Formats: sequence, C-alpha cells, structure tokens
Amino acid sequence: AQTTRIAVTPGDGIGPEVVAEAVRCLETLRAKHKLALEWTRFPWPSHAWHEEYGESWPADALAQLKAYDAILLGALGDPGPMDDTNRYLLPDSISLAPLLDMRKGFDQWVCERPARLLPGARQYLKDDRAKDIDMLVIRENSEGEYVSQGGRLRPGKPDEVATQMEVFTRRATERIIRYGFEQARKRAGERVQEGRTRAFRTLDGRSCESQVCLVTKRNALRYWGDMYTEVFEEVSHDFPDVATHHELVDAACMKFVQCPWAFDVVVASNLQGDILTDLAAVLSGGMGVAPSCNLNPTDPNMPSMFEPTHGSAPDIAGQGIADPTAMLFTTARMLDWLGRKDPKLAQAGKELFDAVAADLAEQGNQQRATSQIGDAICKRLQA
Amino acid sequence: AQTTRIAVTPGDGIGPEVVAEAVRCLETLRAKHKLALEWTRFPWPSHAWHEEYGESWPADALAQLKAYDAILLGALGDPGPMDDTNRYLLPDSISLAPLLDMRKGFDQWVCERPARLLPGARQYLKDDRAKDIDMLVIRENSEGEYVSQGGRLRPGKPDEVATQMEVFTRRATERIIRYGFEQARKRAGERVQEGRTRAFRTLDGRSCESQVCLVTKRNALRYWGDMYTEVFEEVSHDFPDVATHHELVDAACMKFVQCPWAFDVVVASNLQGDILTDLAAVLSGGMGVAPSCNLNPTDPNMPSMFEPTHGSAPDIAGQGIADPTAMLFTTARMLDWLGRKDPKLAQAGKELFDAVAADLAEQGNQQRATSQIGDAICKRLQA
Ligand SMILES: CC(C)[C@H](C(=O)O)[C@@H](O)C(=O)O
Ligand SMILES: CC(C)[C@H](C(=O)O)[C@@H](O)C(=O)O
Repeated sequence: AQTTRIAVTPGDGIGPEVVAEAVRCLETLRAKHKLALEWTRFPWPSHAWHEEYGESWPADALAQLKAYDAILLGALGDPGPMDDTNRYLLPDSISLAPLLDMRKGFDQWVCERPARLLPGARQYLKDDRAKDIDMLVIRENSEGEYVSQGGRLRPGKPDEVATQMEVFTRRATERIIRYGFEQARKRAGERVQEGRTRAFRTLDGRSCESQVCLVTKRNALRYWGDMYTEVFEEVSHDFPDVATHHELVDAACMKFVQCPWAFDVVVASNLQGDILTDLAAVLSGGMGVAPSCNLNPTDPNMPSMFEPTHGSAPDIAGQGIADPTAMLFTTARMLDWLGRKDPKLAQAGKELFDAVAADLAEQGNQQRATSQIGDAICKRLQA
Repeated sequence: AQTTRIAVTPGDGIGPEVVAEAVRCLETLRAKHKLALEWTRFPWPSHAWHEEYGESWPADALAQLKAYDAILLGALGDPGPMDDTNRYLLPDSISLAPLLDMRKGFDQWVCERPARLLPGARQYLKDDRAKDIDMLVIRENSEGEYVSQGGRLRPGKPDEVATQMEVFTRRATERIIRYGFEQARKRAGERVQEGRTRAFRTLDGRSCESQVCLVTKRNALRYWGDMYTEVFEEVSHDFPDVATHHELVDAACMKFVQCPWAFDVVVASNLQGDILTDLAAVLSGGMGVAPSCNLNPTDPNMPSMFEPTHGSAPDIAGQGIADPTAMLFTTARMLDWLGRKDPKLAQAGKELFDAVAADLAEQGNQQRATSQIGDAICKRLQA
C-alpha cells in the first residue's frame, strides 16, 4: 500500500503529553505490523507559536497540512498567563481559531462522536441501563450557527446591538442527514454481525434494527428547522430500513439524561451538535475517554482531523498526570478511518481500541501517570 | 389589599386536568386565608379554539390578558389528529405561537427555573451530592436567538439557503445579568437565614455566599459572546459580594451532569437558557416537578406568566393520570410572585409549596390519579 502520512499537532497544555503516548502506540503498531505509516510533528497551532510569531500558526499552515492523509491534534487553547485583573491574555477566539479554520478549510463537514459506556469508564447516571448506551452523535460541521457572520453596532454604547447570523444550505443539510442514515445502516449491520440486536419502530409501525433521530429547534428557529425537517423526510425514503424520529434540542438534552439508551444515531446542527456531543461524552464516561472526529468523507484530497473532546487543561499541564485514554481512543478512530484506503490500518485501529478498552476495564479511572497508562497499553499491543 | 386577578388558561392535552387541581388548591387557600384573589378561565389558547376559529386565540387576546395580574398556563401544543402519513396536522410553530407572543407582548424578559432535588423526586444522577443541587437558571426571554428574523431563499430547491438571525441588545443583556446578580444576593440572604451556607470564591480569592455563572458560546458566537462578557464584567463591580464564573454552553451542559451542585445562579441567552433549563428540570427530578416562570419584573402593568415546564402530553391526556405536581409548584411560585403586592399571597404560596413538597416526600413519584394527588394536597392545606 501507498504510505499513509499523518500530521501530528500536539498543541497546548496537556496536548503534547497525551500525543506522546499516541505516537508511542503508533510506533509499536507500525513495528508490529510493518505498517506503511509515517508522521510529521508540527509546533503549531499553539500558544507558544503565537507568542513567538504573533499568530496561531503560519500563513501557509493549511497548505502544509493538506499534504497529509489525516491530522492528529492534541488540544488547543492554552489561555497563557493571566493579566493583573485575572483575565486571560489570549482569548479563546484567537487560540482556538485554527480548529475552526481546519474544519472549514478542509471541509470537514462531519463531526462524529460515538458514545458507549465502556466497562471501567465512569458512570454518571444512576440507572444501570446506562451500560446499554450505544449512540453516535453526528454534528453538521461546516455551516449553520458557526459561519461567523454578524457584528457589533455601537460596541460598548448603551444602545449597542450585536447580531449573529445562522446560515444553512440545503446541500449541506442533505449530505449530513444522508450521512447519518448511512451510518445508522452500517452500525446496524455491525451489531447484527456481533449478535447484538436492537429494536426500533418506524412511524408506520415496522420494526427496524436502527434509528436516526433528527434534532432541531423548529418550534422557535423555524426557517432552518423546517428545511431540516423536509430534507429529513425526503432522505428517509431512501432508507426504509431505518426508523426515524425528531426531537427538539431541549427535549433531546433531557432525554440524553433520562434515557440515553433509547438513541442510536443522532443528527444535529453545528451548535446543537456541539452541545449534544459534549453531553454524549459525559454519558460515555466523561472527557477522559471521548474522541472527536472531524471528517471529510467526500473529498479524498482533504485530510480529516482527529482530536480528543477534552481541552488543554492548563491547570494540570506539565505534571505528567494527564490521562491519555481519550487521545488513544481518538488515535484508534483515526486508524480506522485511514483503513478505508489501507485495511491494515483499520486492523491496527481495532487492536488499539481493544487495548485501550481492556486497560480501561482493568484499571478503571484511577489516577495513574500519563506514561504509565501509555506503557500498559503498549505492552498489551506487543503481547 | 386590592383584589389580585389571575387569568387561567388551561390549554391543551393534560393542561386542563392539572390546572383543575391548581384551581382547587387556590380555592382551598382562598377560603382558609380569606385571600383577595379571583380568577377567570379562558378557553384559549388551545387546539380546540384553533379548530373552531382557525386561529390559536382571538385577535384581542393579549389586550384581554393584560387586565390580569398573572397568567397561569396549563400546557400548549396538542398536536391534534395525525394525517395519513403520520404527520401531525397542526405544527408546533402554530400551536405554540401564543406562548412566544405572551413572552414578547408582555415583555416577560426573565424566564426563571429553579432546580433543587427535593426528597421524593426522582434522582437521575448516581452521585448522592445530587441532593445538594440548589441552582436557579435565569434565561433571557425577550430576544437573542428567538427574534424570528430570517427566512428561506429558494425553498425546496437544491440551492436553498435558510437564515436565522440572532439579535442581542446591550440593554436586555444588562438587565438580565443584573437580575441574575440580584437573585444571587437574595438567595444567599435566604440561605444564611435558614442556616444553610455555601462557599464560592471570587477571581481575586475572596470567599462568597453566592455565585453567578454566565453561560455563552463566545469562542464560536463571538459578537454577542463578547458583549455578554463585557457587560457581565461591568455589572459584577456592583456586586462585590457575589462570585463570578463563565462557562461555555457545551461545558456547562457537561458540568450540569458531572457536578450540578457546584452551581448557584446561572444566566444564559434565550436558546442556551432553553436547553439549560430543561437540563436543570431533569436534575430536580424531571418534567413532573419543574415550574417555569416568565416574568416582567420591571413593569407592574404587565402580567407575568407561569407554566409547568412539561408539555401537553397528548398520549396520556383525558385519562386522569397526569401528575399535577409541576403545575402545583408552578402555582406556588405564582403566588410567591404576586406576594410582592399582597404579602398574604406570598404566605399562601409558601404553604402550597410546603404541602406539595411534603406530599412528594411522602409518596415519591409512584403512580396516582391526578385527583388523588390534588386531594392529598388540599387535605394538607386544610390541616
Ligand atoms: C473550541 C470550540 C470552538 C469547539 C466548537 O465549539 O466546535 C469545541 O467546543 C468542540 O466541540 O470541538
Ligand atoms: C415551546 C417552546 C417554543 C418553548 C421555548 O423554546 O421557549 C419551550 O421549550 C419552553 O422552554 O418554554
């Protein structure tokens, strides 16, 4: 197979520490399976780069990254030192800009966050059916609330008006909803193979192995709510084997806490998806385990980007105590994704996932050093 | 005291059933304390009215309601019969319009939803610190994401674009944030009186009895995010006794599940507040107990509106099994609010709250008939 090339961007705070463990696992897997895999490390985007050059990353950053098959990101957004009024000097909207630039620049129009409560992961809900949680939240990642259009009229004046425009296109709506149905079908197939079945019901009463739940706030945000609803209805006709369901975002958040095991695939807009994926992360044990995949499934020349859902945690950075589990699950997801071109990588991704899951099941979320967790997982990979 | 007049609007689905119990409690309290209290029942807004007259309510509905001191609403949004493609005939955006019209028409710029996990209420979180949850979510209720500006360009065409504008004014931002600080101070005073203290810390390290957490998504929705942040900072100077905190909405949702007992007062925009208040409702036991108060604290000529957070639940309507607990907590909140003009009403509100809470503590959330719960509570009120 042609060599697969990864851009590794450790970023800020605990990013470099957890990325170091990911790289060790990649080295172990490469040696074991003679994978055609290479990676290059970039010192940007990062706060340190910003301090030296006054910008989050070089002007040609996107062009440089475009040469890679995937981007493995640690964490962004080290707030840097505080000023004497206790405010951070570098606002999030600057330090995190590269994240949004990559999503936009590489048209990573899907953000995918799976939620399964694996053994050993922290369980926040009282009801033990939490163990049955098995959902995939799919977030529209290219437009909507995140188009950055708007502004401030008379900033700081008593009669100031701030506007923010939400822009949704039917084309992007159609592709994300269709992607959701495709994933539902794929997941159902995988479950059936593993002998795990689920029962959903279509509106006309047929029973199904999978479901797509569309989330909107169409009773208040009517324009795109109606468009989403219509497109959802249309696309669903191509997937008669998938049950459908519509929830308003407020009710969906509530049901994520009350009965998350009732969901399968969930499709939501950029902002609503941002909220739902964070909730889904908690349901699967919290930030310590949750991967986030920013995908471009349509253009093979555009790299997809993989990051843990957690932030840069500046408060514990540099102490060697950050938990690399989410980073390693993220790396497994990346390998699985890259396996679309090279099946050996998918196999390696599965091995990595199994090793991290086994470690989690055995050790739970007890406090261990970053490198100790990495050691344990590398040892499993070598076994 | 001058007679206080309430407009009772039972609405749809289980609305009339739970409102009937609220009215019985009001009657009991009026007789017991010789309250100067009257109420009038309106058949609108409702689906039935819409069926007969083709509109959710009469054209002069707001003018009629304006004569009252408060509005007690059951529930809106009976979806009505389904058509043969299993879609509801009357979309939410029509049946729920009066709700948004009242909020707007009477400038009910605060939506307040308290969350405390009372004994007997359902506990969804595993961690028993859930019993310490004691927060008040304050939602900006007059603008922001809910201004209904926008539209659909080329509807139904492949190149359709749907837009939705968010509009925020500094004036409305300032008043909601200031209201949040005032409530924090008030709650701290009440807690100290009851001997319950809490410990928060200001950014410069002083310890406080109360906290306001501002929620935004300023790292992505920058324009109003920045304005909110600046106004929050400014207003906080008038409340040196209140600790401050800022959370991004995705992180806030996560922390509502992970450590809700760490919050006190939470201030959020219209849509983000909608989501957070639903989550807060789950944290206090679910829809069965959660009140929602739409307040105009500034204009005494504008009625405030009180409704349970739950919907009209058409699936169980007419069976006499709907739980009136949320409706009765809502009624208690209304009496407390009206007590600003007539202290006897505040006293009655406290009695009602105590009776409902005692019933909940004794009976938990076991299944009982609607009227059975009403009976039990009226008996407590008479005792
Ligand atoms: C950092 C922030 C801009 C980002 C987002 O809102 O998309 C983050 O919350 C995420 O979910 O990846
Ligand atoms: C019915 C709907 C328009 C409403 C809202 O979004 O405000 C409801 O969810 C609420 O919270 O009262």
